[in-house]
Amino acid sequence: MRHKENYEKHVAQRRAHYESEDTNGRLVINLRDISHTMRDLSEGRGSQKRVLILLLETGPITQRELTERLGIQPGSASEVVAKLENAGLLTRTESESDRRTVDVTMTGEGERQAKEAKSQREGRHREMFAALSEEEKSQLLGLLEKVNRDWESRYAQRQCHHQGRHGKHGPHSEQEGHELRHEGSAEDRPHCNHDCLNCPNPCGKGRALRESGR
Amino acid sequence: MRHKENYEKHVAQRRAHYESEDTNGRLVINLRDISHTMRDLSEGRGSQKRVLILLLETGPITQRELTERLGIQPGSASEVVAKLENAGLLTRTESESDRRTVDVTMTGEGERQAKEAKSQREGRHREMFAALSEEEKSQLLGLLEKVNRDWESRYAQRQCHHQGRHGKHGPHSEQEGHELRHEGSAEDRPHCNHDCLNCPNPCGKGRALRESGR
Repeated sequence: MRHKENYEKHVAQRRAHYESEDTNGRLVINLRDISHTMRDLSEGRGSQKRVLILLLETGPITQRELTERLGIQPGSASEVVAKLENAGLLTRTESESDRRTVDVTMTGEGERQAKEAKSQREGRHREMFAALSEEEKSQLLGLLEKVNRDWESRYAQRQCHHQGRHGKHGPHSEQEGHELRHEGSAEDRPHCNHDCLNCPNPCGKGRALRESGR
Repeated sequence: MRHKENYEKHVAQRRAHYESEDTNGRLVINLRDISHTMRDLSEGRGSQKRVLILLLETGPITQRELTERLGIQPGSASEVVAKLENAGLLTRTESESDRRTVDVTMTGEGERQAKEAKSQREGRHREMFAALSEEEKSQLLGLLEKVNRDWESRYAQRQCHHQGRHGKHGPHSEQEGHELRHEGSAEDRPHCNHDCLNCPNPCGKGRALRESGR
């Protein structure tokens, strides 16, 4: 009972707060809400489904490359690969190209489940934007790409290796200045909140900060 | 050197992946990138600045209510409040309305710093959308609200107490069905990824999952 009252008060407070915000503030709130729901909906960065879908796209690759593409810690990648191997969905063999790692290859059953997971994901993505017409989707995509392109240059220092994430949004993404943004030691730059293993200057602070609950 | 090569390969892979996606997939990628940058830019849920800004909006409140509004653990709230008290930015006094908690009141210097933090946040929000015209911003806001309104009903089960977060987007947010969505025990529902203390049925699984790195 107390919970329900609190909850209703909370909803009312949120609504009042939203209404007191200007367009910029409302954009931020909407984007944050969307990101929360998206996180709930996604397979998870180191999930078995995500690994299977990735392998479907890449074909057989080394575990080292798989780990880099997933953007997770090597230990976490090892763990999920071992689970998939135990379930008979992939095999690990000595790598011919790189003796320090192993090649990861899907089995037939792995491929079947990967296709199923991929089709689930596509269905989820269709459903996520089912409220919008095709025209509205294009409009939304154009606006989001414009924001992301602007942020690539505006927040380059902060984004650190997110250039890797962002360097793809539309026609202006071929811009110069990549290297410049990555000069200086990790300590000189603000922390990044990601764990991408491909950053030329990984600072490693993001994860620690995130886990500390900030 | 190896880092730089890896990094360039990574950017190329990301771009190829982006281009292989349809509109829905690209929307997801853009929204995810935006949420990553936004997280880097924000003050942080339990940061001193956020507490000050909140107190500016609410005026003196109990520490219990402050904790609920921040949506963080009581221990974290205690910690940040103690820091602000030690810095002379707020005072804690016995609460007259609720003996189990204390009243939190900003000092003059606290208010000054709160106003500064609020104006920094507003400046940041302006800057974030500076690439868009006023018309584009309204368009974007309208589309995001449409998506969020749709998700409120579509993913109600998943969103759990996010109704509290979402129950405010535009004219359809007064819809019925709130209670219904919150029936059943926490175990019956999928986990939620948030730690809102106002959820009538908090499941508490989200935080654990997030911290396990999934």
